[in-house]
Amino acid sequence: MPTFGAGIWHFATYKDRYATDGYGPPVGLLEQIDRAGAVGELSVVDLNWPFVGFDGTLDDVKAALAKNDLKAIAITPEIYTRDFVKGSFTNPDPAVRKRAIALMHDATEVALELGCSYVKLWPGQDGWDYPFQVNYHDIWQLALDGLTELCSAHPEINYVIEYKPREPRVKIVFPSVARTLLGIERVGLPNLGILLDFGHSLYGQETPADAAQLAIDHGRLFAIDVNDNMRGWDDDMVVGSVHLVETFEFFHTLRRNDWDGVWQLDQFPFREDSVQAAKQAIRFLKAIHRALDVLDDDALAQAQAAHDALAAQRLVQNALLTSMAGLENA
Amino acid sequence: MPTFGAGIWHFATYKDRYATDGYGPPVGLLEQIDRAGAVGELSVVDLNWPFVGFDGTLDDVKAALAKNDLKAIAITPEIYTRDFVKGSFTNPDPAVRKRAIALMHDATEVALELGCSYVKLWPGQDGWDYPFQVNYHDIWQLALDGLTELCSAHPEINYVIEYKPREPRVKIVFPSVARTLLGIERVGLPNLGILLDFGHSLYGQETPADAAQLAIDHGRLFAIDVNDNMRGWDDDMVVGSVHLVETFEFFHTLRRNDWDGVWQLDQFPFREDSVQAAKQAIRFLKAIHRALDVLDDDALAQAQAAHDALAAQRLVQNALLTSMAGLENA
Amino acid sequence: MPTFGAGIWHFATYKDRYATDGYGPPVGLLEQIDRAGAVGELSVVDLNWPFVGFDGTLDDVKAALAKNDLKAIAITPEIYTRDFVKGSFTNPDPAVRKRAIALMHDATEVALELGCSYVKLWPGQDGWDYPFQVNYHDIWQLALDGLTELCSAHPEINYVIEYKPREPRVKIVFPSVARTLLGIERVGLPNLGILLDFGHSLYGQETPADAAQLAIDHGRLFAIDVNDNMRGWDDDMVVGSVHLVETFEFFHTLRRNDWDGVWQLDQFPFREDSVQAAKQAIRFLKAIHRALDVLDDDALAQAQAAHDALAAQRLVQNALLTSMAGLENA
Amino acid sequence: MPTFGAGIWHFATYKDRYATDGYGPPVGLLEQIDRAGAVGELSVVDLNWPFVGFDGTLDDVKAALAKNDLKAIAITPEIYTRDFVKGSFTNPDPAVRKRAIALMHDATEVALELGCSYVKLWPGQDGWDYPFQVNYHDIWQLALDGLTELCSAHPEINYVIEYKPREPRVKIVFPSVARTLLGIERVGLPNLGILLDFGHSLYGQETPADAAQLAIDHGRLFAIDVNDNMRGWDDDMVVGSVHLVETFEFFHTLRRNDWDGVWQLDQFPFREDSVQAAKQAIRFLKAIHRALDVLDDDALAQAQAAHDALAAQRLVQNALLTSMAGLENA
Repeated sequence: MPTFGAGIWHFATYKDRYATDGYGPPVGLLEQIDRAGAVGELSVVDLNWPFVGFDGTLDDVKAALAKNDLKAIAITPEIYTRDFVKGSFTNPDPAVRKRAIALMHDATEVALELGCSYVKLWPGQDGWDYPFQVNYHDIWQLALDGLTELCSAHPEINYVIEYKPREPRVKIVFPSVARTLLGIERVGLPNLGILLDFGHSLYGQETPADAAQLAIDHGRLFAIDVNDNMRGWDDDMVVGSVHLVETFEFFHTLRRNDWDGVWQLDQFPFREDSVQAAKQAIRFLKAIHRALDVLDDDALAQAQAAHDALAAQRLVQNALLTSMAGLENA
Repeated sequence: MPTFGAGIWHFATYKDRYATDGYGPPVGLLEQIDRAGAVGELSVVDLNWPFVGFDGTLDDVKAALAKNDLKAIAITPEIYTRDFVKGSFTNPDPAVRKRAIALMHDATEVALELGCSYVKLWPGQDGWDYPFQVNYHDIWQLALDGLTELCSAHPEINYVIEYKPREPRVKIVFPSVARTLLGIERVGLPNLGILLDFGHSLYGQETPADAAQLAIDHGRLFAIDVNDNMRGWDDDMVVGSVHLVETFEFFHTLRRNDWDGVWQLDQFPFREDSVQAAKQAIRFLKAIHRALDVLDDDALAQAQAAHDALAAQRLVQNALLTSMAGLENA
Repeated sequence: MPTFGAGIWHFATYKDRYATDGYGPPVGLLEQIDRAGAVGELSVVDLNWPFVGFDGTLDDVKAALAKNDLKAIAITPEIYTRDFVKGSFTNPDPAVRKRAIALMHDATEVALELGCSYVKLWPGQDGWDYPFQVNYHDIWQLALDGLTELCSAHPEINYVIEYKPREPRVKIVFPSVARTLLGIERVGLPNLGILLDFGHSLYGQETPADAAQLAIDHGRLFAIDVNDNMRGWDDDMVVGSVHLVETFEFFHTLRRNDWDGVWQLDQFPFREDSVQAAKQAIRFLKAIHRALDVLDDDALAQAQAAHDALAAQRLVQNALLTSMAGLENA
Repeated sequence: MPTFGAGIWHFATYKDRYATDGYGPPVGLLEQIDRAGAVGELSVVDLNWPFVGFDGTLDDVKAALAKNDLKAIAITPEIYTRDFVKGSFTNPDPAVRKRAIALMHDATEVALELGCSYVKLWPGQDGWDYPFQVNYHDIWQLALDGLTELCSAHPEINYVIEYKPREPRVKIVFPSVARTLLGIERVGLPNLGILLDFGHSLYGQETPADAAQLAIDHGRLFAIDVNDNMRGWDDDMVVGSVHLVETFEFFHTLRRNDWDGVWQLDQFPFREDSVQAAKQAIRFLKAIHRALDVLDDDALAQAQAAHDALAAQRLVQNALLTSMAGLENA
């Protein structure tokens, strides 16, 4: 079985521009960690930083993680809150850019202190909304410069960019796997890679398995997240609720390449019980894992060599549509 | 088991604006019928009319159908070829409108002669491409007037509108289930209903099961087609290749309402063997049928009464992800 | 010149699921009204209710409006906050449905007290997220029952439904003009109509001018909102920033039908000065108004009668691409 | 004024999968050239090759071009017709791959003979339709190998890849500017660049001006095409019919970078007069050219340095919405 993980925000409650009073009462950081522990299947979590609304110490966090048999795999600095709504790396104000990078340096220290594998950069406010709003050459250069400054300062830890086509900005500077790889190659540092969020890839009109293969072929697939959506937006639904075949193909591509990282959840269960949502996601991922064991790899390779869609689909359905047998009550 | 059917064009070869020489050598009408027969699971077919490129008689067609144990369920008049590229019912030229309706009258005679259940109207060229190109009031009125004239002339047979958001026109006058029902209610005749194409509904941002329920609640769901796509275009892929859960939900809604029409294929296997594509589609539909038998309807109704997505998904996965067990070699 | 208006939220600051601390410091209700007044062009506003975070009286609100030469045109009850995240009319819990309708009754009282033209219903949480989550027949019936109960209780005032394809729910029960008209016809009351939001129509794959025409032809176009987006989401950008031609066509359709309601803004200037955003929108709308005066209606009608896209576009460009001449410094 | 050009197919008639008898009677190659000449504003054309259905000589073509004051700027080999429906470079059959590359070699000879600037490669059939159909690593490698073989054999001429997200394949191997640049950098030859089709970029969720800037910054923007669409498909509508602001921004980015290539049309006037469609496109492009002259570049640079969308939009509207003044009868 793979190692399972989740972003800690999976266990928070949410606001949006309409339900500004939140989809439920606030859940504090330690309670979020306890909920992650209550899933019973998670080994690692990704933690936002600063710990908003938390007045305890880092040791308190460590203790909460330990109590729940969890490790922090990553720190995600919050470079998308009020200070940074016009961008972090690419903010038009040099003073804000400086603050953003300082925040990322601090987040790196926390990540090192917690023994994390990487710092996750999600520049969701770095981009533009309107035609003619920015100079595209300049904003891209600022993004690369900021990454270079940050990553070269901390060769002892990895950084990942989680690309996303849009939201909250109408357009984000790192919208796709290929654009992100172009930027990473330009930066040219070994400790900068990609976190591929399955849902971002799906609604960005990519084929997630193809995006994973490309990142692997460039040696840059450092981490992955899964969830689901309706292909038009980052709905962050529970994995396995809509796009079963493409989820299966995504994990098949990872296995074919012997990629052995964490199978990590990035779901936003706005109206669902978050512990139950994680449990059900993992139940589905276990079925996928079984289907991978059952799939006839040789026959599939032969079908793919001929681009024979029907033969490939037949093998896939044989594996996937029997994958839950015996797991119904799991 | 349900009755299975297919549009006869499933067994043709295709052209598009690039491969103007076709995706394969032309396949004549009788050969198309033989291919439909070769699937071994089809009971009915929907025939385009006029029989383009066919110089035989209607009796020849009847004989070919009989030989293959097939019945014609419908006639689809070709109101979208060169004569009608600016519309059929709604063509700006009254003479062309007249020719279009004459063609539909003739198609009705053929349908009656063949004992069809309905005449299918697919007004794919009725619409607009550019902003400001048409007067929306006028074009809608022309569509309703044409339908009224046609359907009131033949109370002895049903007509169905196959709605579609777009292609070949950038916008089609009957783009969605609700718009089509509005028009049908305005026409107010009992013999005019809807053919709901699952793929059209899916890429039109509807929930196909919801669209089916609405049409049923209005007493207008006369026929259905299935296929699959990537939610952005009418790809007419083999059913079961992408959107398994929503296909399952679609058929679940039909069963819940005791809808017992034909399960009909509208696939375009551009680059695939058409007989094999139909066989594989039906293999999948049989798995869906089994899953419907297995699905815990009471528990699902309870989950739905509470809008409990997680409970519902769990039941669905239990049924769907075991549905192929034992059918692998079917 | 038309009467201009705006939703009062145009002058608030916003939160979303990432910038949970807001895109700026909170702006109180009275300050929002002052900002609306500062635009200098607005005559009416639409007010959310309850007045969240406001501890003054209704008289205070009246005074603030009067001071700024503003009238309340509508009240929008907040049926999409925490209590209602699983729906208002269609909530699975009958007690919540009751509370939602009670809130709408109360909002109606406030609207009457303020002399509003209508109460606006935006059931953004009424819908579903996941396949199989709801029974589509039941949820639609609940929506119609709730509307019937509400609207029949207050024949002295109008209600409008602001349809929207999605957000915050993945699917909303009133997603399109046609579906909403179907529901309104089923309810069958004269005081229930549509508020057509241009942006909702645009990203819902409608042609906004066609949607307006249909609502007018059913006698149900009670109000409109304008803004802009990238056709994939409700970006609520400043009107005139992207889709100039379709905005022009929308207003042309209103004029052709002698529709003389308020030209109302529903923009979310997340990162912009809200007063400036409104001013610039109105500057553009004035240019549109001039273009309508200049447009050669007879020639256009002739082009449309022939579905002649090129002739129509030529006339449109002549009017639109000269419309700002002399207004540059306005 | 810039040099204007067009793909010669602009002046053909079209088929699609429904109107298989064509949107009009066939138009022969020489007549297409005469129509291009009749526009009166075109200096160059891009020619498909082989000259399908043409039994004259290359000298006949040269004469027809000369007669119409036209030059061939490019040859587009038809690597997307029946032989190649499962791919050209990436066809699963090595013999077909060989034939495809042979065809491209031959096309190169024709291009050299005609004094063209480049050979255009549009691998529209190179990709996949179904999940699990291909091995993504292998298909990408085949694409790069084929390009390397071709381009290294002809250092005396340029090649351009016209990327496109989809159609006719559900997914194409070169779908975006960034993916194409990644491939080009991997190939590493100086004579391989990009033809950026504005419409492909637009419906591929890119910002076309940003895509152009990126290609320029990599030294690979060899050519451009313009047209328009509804952001969901490659509608190939007449430029200037929908997305005026983004078209303006696209050309502004080209000018800012002193890019001085041909302004080329890639329109498919299915139902319009092709000469008139080209004339009207060029009328609009001249208005854009005037707007570029009028646009206050310094003020815009200042607005962009601050990411000030409102200030930028204001300048843009001042230039764009006055640009047709005096050209109304052009």
